[in-house]
Amino acid sequence: MRATVLVRPKAGILDPQGAAVETSLRHLGFEVAEARVGRVIDLEVAETDAVRARERVDAMCRQLLTNPLIESYEIELQGHA
Amino acid sequence: MRATVLVRPKAGILDPQGAAVETSLRHLGFEVAEARVGRVIDLEVAETDAVRARERVDAMCRQLLTNPLIESYEIELQGHA
Repeated sequence: MRATVLVRPKAGILDPQGAAVETSLRHLGFEVAEARVGRVIDLEVAETDAVRARERVDAMCRQLLTNPLIESYEIELQGHA
Repeated sequence: MRATVLVRPKAGILDPQGAAVETSLRHLGFEVAEARVGRVIDLEVAETDAVRARERVDAMCRQLLTNPLIESYEIELQGHA
């Protein structure tokens, strides 16, 4: 089953990449109030059951894919958003 | 209007970050067939019209946010997925 994880810096957490994007967009003449940059991770997991797949991906997020202190994440399963 | 841009390495393009994630997940005992890592960019744009907002964000993607040679992108507007 295919899973997509969206990892974003939590509100209030400094995001230098986002700040750089914001500044560059303004220099190019685009009006943006805020830009935040995170990661998107696409995974193909062996699990076929949606509930168990979500549990496995959640464990991956806690153990490797995210830093829960400074990042939040959402998991989307293909066909089970 | 709030926009989210998902930027992913195109199929066939080397993704060292994804390869590292894949290897690390397997070392932790997770069964993953593939992992690909891209970026998620959240923007607050001044435009209120959905069609024009999408055009503006598309221009941002072409000019700054993505490298169209090696990356593909999708734009999602809040309430207009």
